[in-house]
Amino acid sequence: MRLNMQRIHEAYERIDPVFRDTPSVSFPALNAITGADISLKLECLNPIRSFKGRGVVTMLSRLHESQPDVRQVVCASAGNLGQALAWCSRQFHVSASIVVPETVSPIKLEAIRRLGGNVLIHGGDFDAAKVYAHDWAQANQAYLVIDSLDLGSCDGAATIALEETHSGNTYDTVLVALGNGALATGVGTVFKYAAPATQAVAVQSKAASAMTQSWQERRIVETATAATIADGIAVRVPIPEVVADTWEVLDDAIAVDESSIRRAMKIIAESTGLLCEPSAAVGVAAILENPQRFRGQRVLCIICGTNITVSHFNDLVGAT
Amino acid sequence: MRLNMQRIHEAYERIDPVFRDTPSVSFPALNAITGADISLKLECLNPIRSFKGRGVVTMLSRLHESQPDVRQVVCASAGNLGQALAWCSRQFHVSASIVVPETVSPIKLEAIRRLGGNVLIHGGDFDAAKVYAHDWAQANQAYLVIDSLDLGSCDGAATIALEETHSGNTYDTVLVALGNGALATGVGTVFKYAAPATQAVAVQSKAASAMTQSWQERRIVETATAATIADGIAVRVPIPEVVADTWEVLDDAIAVDESSIRRAMKIIAESTGLLCEPSAAVGVAAILENPQRFRGQRVLCIICGTNITVSHFNDLVGAT
Repeated sequence: MRLNMQRIHEAYERIDPVFRDTPSVSFPALNAITGADISLKLECLNPIRSFKGRGVVTMLSRLHESQPDVRQVVCASAGNLGQALAWCSRQFHVSASIVVPETVSPIKLEAIRRLGGNVLIHGGDFDAAKVYAHDWAQANQAYLVIDSLDLGSCDGAATIALEETHSGNTYDTVLVALGNGALATGVGTVFKYAAPATQAVAVQSKAASAMTQSWQERRIVETATAATIADGIAVRVPIPEVVADTWEVLDDAIAVDESSIRRAMKIIAESTGLLCEPSAAVGVAAILENPQRFRGQRVLCIICGTNITVSHFNDLVGAT
Repeated sequence: MRLNMQRIHEAYERIDPVFRDTPSVSFPALNAITGADISLKLECLNPIRSFKGRGVVTMLSRLHESQPDVRQVVCASAGNLGQALAWCSRQFHVSASIVVPETVSPIKLEAIRRLGGNVLIHGGDFDAAKVYAHDWAQANQAYLVIDSLDLGSCDGAATIALEETHSGNTYDTVLVALGNGALATGVGTVFKYAAPATQAVAVQSKAASAMTQSWQERRIVETATAATIADGIAVRVPIPEVVADTWEVLDDAIAVDESSIRRAMKIIAESTGLLCEPSAAVGVAAILENPQRFRGQRVLCIICGTNITVSHFNDLVGAT
């Protein structure tokens, strides 16, 4: 088990206030539709519209202390990590290159460029971009930021949960999107040690379920494709160290249908006014698919990103 | 001048934490499009999705102290005040009736009913509903809550600005939606006394500009209609006491085109992920209509409500 509470507390102190102390809000219409007592932790109301700032600040801040001579960093990203790296790199005076797959969503690509990130488009999906980022880092003597493998990304994401346990908010279940695993293992660790009565449940799409399968089968399972609308969690090659962490801290891992994600996006928009990207809607999707399991429960869902255009949102959920 | 800082500070202490200490967030895409340095004060991430909780808690809390025997309250509302009254009345053990006009938006009507409010539908617009609420209060011995005339509504709304001046955030201009005036005079008062370098500018639609005309002409101007998409600020009969307050605390009052409100709604959604209702977009609309005036300025815009359906949003801005 790689994570610990001491380092998570330490990460909290490093994080830029613009990413920290986010609201968790209950919306009556959402509760009426789902039958659960849901709090949405809104990790989307910051300049990069996702939770990734927490982890990236933590990683770059630690890197700045341990290797102050690093001038160039690179990562692979579906788009949100890249925005965070572009945003945070300015504070630490490093140049940031971001390898995105050819399938990157235009809004994320444009946002990275707006923030001054050097964009490299390569590979058919996230994991292909990741291989290229590794090679590019070696060829260019850049520091390679690997989301979820770098503990800073997990510790930073974990502070989302830390704010809730510190506030004394109690939940029966926390539902957390599972991609490479930084968010799920970070949040899972905090609840396991600070609020063990809360079940930590990770959620993926059935169309990209490598991590869920790996959790369930207690072995590393890769998938041939990761063809989900939830681009932020479209992983087909799990990181073994992170999978091992999920075995320690998650109480369950659920894969949901793509259609449930679309339904959840629509319901969240109608009941909150927020246009979620698909990855941020998987928790509500899990409740929609399992209404009996969550009925009456106090559930925390983390809205981890809203980087989606209105037209893409309408395409996915159907303009009505 | 009816408002003062002492009573605004006192109101802050009364307000339920779910409505208080809201984030003010800067979104790079919004700044890139408008040329201004905009902070959005997000008064929509609470169970009623508008700023109205602040004022209603303040009014009901003071009423509870001064007239503890009141068991029944009634108000006229375009929908957001009514949600706030229904929500807050439970805490003070009073029954809430809400008179809404026949034109009330379905999402607001449904939300009031979900919160247990007794809905009375009457009149062709807000001001017609207001006349009926007055008569209904007399016939039913109910306490009549009059938004903006009751200082609690102004003091409560003013705490939005108080949080900003307390945080040390500085702005060249604050742009605030102008309906009956509680929000504009409350916010204007705080900036006038606590941060006088900030220009307080109120914004209305040209299709419902009674208050703006009253401010500009220094007399009470009523309009024949208030046919704006911005239902939350569709007022044709100004309250004289409130108009007098606007003369004291506002530095300017602007009326914008309906088309600019639609454009602003679209731009806000694309750059923040938030579906604003039209009333909440008038500040950004004012910047879009006056780009030179606001270029490079630090501007605070208050996102005062998101009670709009996805389909209504798409109808207004054009599904793309």
